Amino acid sequence: MDSNTPVNAIRILSADMVQQANSGHPGFPLGAAPIIYTLFSRHLRFDTQHPQWFDRDRFVLSAGHGSAMLYAMLHLLGYPELPLSELQAFRQFGSKTPGHPEYRHTPGVEATTGPLGAGMGMAVGMAIAEAHLASVFNRDGLPLVDHYTYVLGGDGCMMEGVSYEAFSLAGTLGLGKLIVLYDSNGITIEGKTDIAFTEDVIGRFDSFGFHTQEVLDGNDIEAISAAIDAAKAETERPSLIKINTHIAYGVPERVDTPAAHGEPLGAKNIAALRESLDWEYSEPFFVPEEVYSHFNTLAAAGAERHAAWIGLKEKYASALPDEYTLFQDYLALAPYETAEAVLSESVSQEKPEATRNIFGDLLNKVAKGLPHLMGGSADLSPSNKTYINGAGDFSKEGRKGRNIHFGVRENAMGAIAIGMALHEGLQPYTGTFLVFADYMKPMIRLAALMKLRIIFVFTHDSIGVGEDGPTHEPVDQLTMLRAIPGLTVIRPADRNESIAALREATLNWEGQGPVALALSRQNLEPVSKNSEDPGKGGYIVYGEKSSAPDVTLIATGSEVFPSIEAAKILEAKGRSARVVSMPSQELFAAMPEEYRDSVIPPESSARIAVEAGSRLSWGTFIGPCGGYVTMDGFGASAPAGKLFEKFGFTAENIAAKAEELIDSKKRS
Amino acid sequence: MDSNTPVNAIRILSADMVQQANSGHPGFPLGAAPIIYTLFSRHLRFDTQHPQWFDRDRFVLSAGHGSAMLYAMLHLLGYPELPLSELQAFRQFGSKTPGHPEYRHTPGVEATTGPLGAGMGMAVGMAIAEAHLASVFNRDGLPLVDHYTYVLGGDGCMMEGVSYEAFSLAGTLGLGKLIVLYDSNGITIEGKTDIAFTEDVIGRFDSFGFHTQEVLDGNDIEAISAAIDAAKAETERPSLIKINTHIAYGVPERVDTPAAHGEPLGAKNIAALRESLDWEYSEPFFVPEEVYSHFNTLAAAGAERHAAWIGLKEKYASALPDEYTLFQDYLALAPYETAEAVLSESVSQEKPEATRNIFGDLLNKVAKGLPHLMGGSADLSPSNKTYINGAGDFSKEGRKGRNIHFGVRENAMGAIAIGMALHEGLQPYTGTFLVFADYMKPMIRLAALMKLRIIFVFTHDSIGVGEDGPTHEPVDQLTMLRAIPGLTVIRPADRNESIAALREATLNWEGQGPVALALSRQNLEPVSKNSEDPGKGGYIVYGEKSSAPDVTLIATGSEVFPSIEAAKILEAKGRSARVVSMPSQELFAAMPEEYRDSVIPPESSARIAVEAGSRLSWGTFIGPCGGYVTMDGFGASAPAGKLFEKFGFTAENIAAKAEELIDSKKRS
Repeated sequence: MDSNTPVNAIRILSADMVQQANSGHPGFPLGAAPIIYTLFSRHLRFDTQHPQWFDRDRFVLSAGHGSAMLYAMLHLLGYPELPLSELQAFRQFGSKTPGHPEYRHTPGVEATTGPLGAGMGMAVGMAIAEAHLASVFNRDGLPLVDHYTYVLGGDGCMMEGVSYEAFSLAGTLGLGKLIVLYDSNGITIEGKTDIAFTEDVIGRFDSFGFHTQEVLDGNDIEAISAAIDAAKAETERPSLIKINTHIAYGVPERVDTPAAHGEPLGAKNIAALRESLDWEYSEPFFVPEEVYSHFNTLAAAGAERHAAWIGLKEKYASALPDEYTLFQDYLALAPYETAEAVLSESVSQEKPEATRNIFGDLLNKVAKGLPHLMGGSADLSPSNKTYINGAGDFSKEGRKGRNIHFGVRENAMGAIAIGMALHEGLQPYTGTFLVFADYMKPMIRLAALMKLRIIFVFTHDSIGVGEDGPTHEPVDQLTMLRAIPGLTVIRPADRNESIAALREATLNWEGQGPVALALSRQNLEPVSKNSEDPGKGGYIVYGEKSSAPDVTLIATGSEVFPSIEAAKILEAKGRSARVVSMPSQELFAAMPEEYRDSVIPPESSARIAVEAGSRLSWGTFIGPCGGYVTMDGFGASAPAGKLFEKFGFTAENIAAKAEELIDSKKRS
Repeated sequence: MDSNTPVNAIRILSADMVQQANSGHPGFPLGAAPIIYTLFSRHLRFDTQHPQWFDRDRFVLSAGHGSAMLYAMLHLLGYPELPLSELQAFRQFGSKTPGHPEYRHTPGVEATTGPLGAGMGMAVGMAIAEAHLASVFNRDGLPLVDHYTYVLGGDGCMMEGVSYEAFSLAGTLGLGKLIVLYDSNGITIEGKTDIAFTEDVIGRFDSFGFHTQEVLDGNDIEAISAAIDAAKAETERPSLIKINTHIAYGVPERVDTPAAHGEPLGAKNIAALRESLDWEYSEPFFVPEEVYSHFNTLAAAGAERHAAWIGLKEKYASALPDEYTLFQDYLALAPYETAEAVLSESVSQEKPEATRNIFGDLLNKVAKGLPHLMGGSADLSPSNKTYINGAGDFSKEGRKGRNIHFGVRENAMGAIAIGMALHEGLQPYTGTFLVFADYMKPMIRLAALMKLRIIFVFTHDSIGVGEDGPTHEPVDQLTMLRAIPGLTVIRPADRNESIAALREATLNWEGQGPVALALSRQNLEPVSKNSEDPGKGGYIVYGEKSSAPDVTLIATGSEVFPSIEAAKILEAKGRSARVVSMPSQELFAAMPEEYRDSVIPPESSARIAVEAGSRLSWGTFIGPCGGYVTMDGFGASAPAGKLFEKFGFTAENIAAKAEELIDSKKRS
């Protein structure tokens, strides 16, 4: 068998998949096939029959539009659930081969990618997780955690700011086992890459402190393999290998053209491809047995590596039983009793406290009981209260540290957290101001799409920011987050609600996806009696449950206390009012209808939403004729108290709005 | 007067402002004061009494937390509306001196900044605008448009991906009149910068093709000035000047410490500052007359430069009257009749068309009549249809081109569009897929906060994306955009609605802020009769206006046509149905209540929202007991038609939901 045959099998399958689907991206696979083949055949540690083998090398296809190539590769190697019929169902409803790779959906797919640059950042997160877990568990001669992280992306991935952010940090952290494969084909959708991108990418990575190499001919398997060898040998610095390829290699009419990117080749070009590659089989999707046999050999070698690691693991378990138990706990993200105790109690909060401070206090109290909790902030930890005291910093010199200094890089922080969660063995958390959730939006969405166990901590959650003004005051962010499917947003009002929030994000986590916490900068009065009710997402915090009130005020976070005060004003005027604290719309929605109806009386009664944010996410509760005490414009720069007053978040104003609504309901 | 005295005046005022407010960021101003002083005293072209002088140099303080320094500078120079009393009201409600600089709020402030990195990208946009307008209008000996763009930022601005994206493009474009002043003080909030940021920033900018310099001593005014001279002399490449400073310079207890960043210094440190700077006046906010006099001289010199430019302008006007008229039209963003004709007509759309194609067609038809319309796409123009044919590319070699290749850099694209709009003389537009609005969110928000005239074009606006799958299918983005105060979101259903949308974004623009267009990938059947109704944001597209229907279906974009088909099914079953097409909630909200009530009957009747996106933004119309045919989870990878069917956006399913709702209303 010609040494190019396996590479060409990947090419032919990819092209046939796109053609069959009449949709997809043939250009990247045709150019990059030698890269993925070289990596999988000579370097990558995997076991096709155990795709989740913990110490496998990680591979992320950041250029997610090259999915056909990845599916072809996984199919040839014999990964489960990927028979030829699945390749033939590329991009069809319910197939294992969706348009972009989807984590949890296809065995062997390590990450959901497609939005460019994202996979690059995820790979940095995986490499961080590996380095940390290796430092925690490895002992002399017993390298239980010891694998590389590879990521493959193209020019688009390089242009996106998220990859810059992540790689700059990777350089600082000296992530020696991260190997970046940069497919440089010089073509983007709008034309030659140099219409928008003339930078010296290698020079840029040199500036980060990467080990850099260039492979001039992307079809030269030996050169690619040698470069990967050199990258693996470099242990102090992450590696970049720039590999010059040709988009749509093998298709004379499309090679090196933008049209190659996202259009099926067409029958004529597919035939031309077969001819130029000397591929002698005209039948679509046909792969000769010798090719399968070659890949079977590779798969068998992978299984042997896995078996060797299992031997190592057994040796480890018998030599270091306590460490091994801990290792298993990490993999299960199992909490310890100390954490359970902290997160199960209800606290009689004595004085006003900021929920960010409460969170910081709880984080530090549970840190030992949740040793796999690891994270940090985008350079705001003193404000976000995300620092675990005494747990050290994760750095080039100290891999055991659990505090990550992400730098002012919110989007990469999100991508890195995703990578850490994908790696498994750690529960990552991040921290920044709520308004800067904007910068992280792409990654929060991807984390939700992948249903990952991540805690996104957002402090300074309203105009309570005060003097920093409208650029720093979130008004639209809570709605933005609540609109993301699968993200649980929790905005606690006090310590008990904060306990419940952290419990939902850790002990009670059951695959529901990431949790976003919105925490106050300013002190808040206690409002809740226990930490059980808040776990229901919404509950009556003031007023009689038995009788229907004249008005129901639904509030969150810092707006719960003034709503209670408003209810008291209303009562003094002979109106009955109920206050519902609703720290989480998503948790409330998951409760039985009967419970929900018992908390919020039927729509015919008057309802008002009270939240220092956009009204949009309250409409489904309140409707067109209820009341809103919300922030529907931007904030302003002034002391926080002044702003709450000016924008109407006082007990008096809430009560006045309620009276008005009650009266209008009576009139109608 | 000691040559340091004016610099120290800026320092003292900044420190006093933060102290008086008991809030703010003293560290940056104390370190960077020599930079801003050198720039404003020796280089920057401005006229304090005409802050909007068109050919002034632009200056953006990307490190917006250094606002006190900027206000102090503007005050000393005698800018309007900034007496000492305003400095004393720093960060107070209604003052001219909010926590972060706010465009339109304070004369002399060129941009709203604070979210780090953003101002860097805006400066690139300003430099693009200058280069383009200069190429359009300048003639031999008559350089009507000829100014520099300066931007000052710190380590945080450098770490953010948006600045990387923008500067990489600036290098490609060879923006020789862009000068980046990088205040490098080695300190971030979490500690020394090198805990997260060890890259060689100069090396990185070299890789972009920047001209780079380093000033070792940030207090050396001569060295800073010489570097700016050298940067100005370099006309082929943008310039980076790294200037090494000390955060909280002059405060022994705070210098070079993170605590200096965001905490008031306290009285003791303020006294120590005065002492170490040899500032002999202990009274807060006191500035000796000789300092004011010095700055008055600078202001007078600035006014002279402005007068000289007015002379040039007059010479230009008489020598080139047609060009001068055009120049004035650009400044006014005045449309020509050809554009008005296109955007005023109503079209009888004959066949199904994708609204992205309709937009592309309209854009090309109006391009000559809106010559100041300039923009492009983040490497998706063939898909976004954002290319103006025959208008050329804006490039290093060709400044006249109106098509910008932004590269795969959505967030920088947003920041650049902001900078172009801030510059004035151009109306920028951007293009990408709706799902990637996520990457741009920080800049869309800032554009809305500044009420800028920008068109954000988003195509592929739903699961109509099809095979590319959930990573590329927006479901949460329309809600995200609608939650941004001051952004007008328009999702047209056909050609007439698209005409109205573009009209709102151009001809009808009256300071309301940016417009986001959500356009379909797939073909849509025509639904509207004229282009007047859609301008109202919402209107009856099917059903009798006279009588109250059994159900009102409110739909947008691609969901309007199936809603009409559903209404017909309902009618065949003896139910009356009205269909409201609501391309823009914001435009509809701006209509008189009477009109709105005539379009949507009172809440007691049955209402259903039909949109292939999150239900959240429809709650205020529909409430808890209406119906939603919406996308409340993620999409999937399959042909678009299949997805619309699977997710329930068929006439049959909409009709069934409506029947159910009508019946339940009758029961209740």
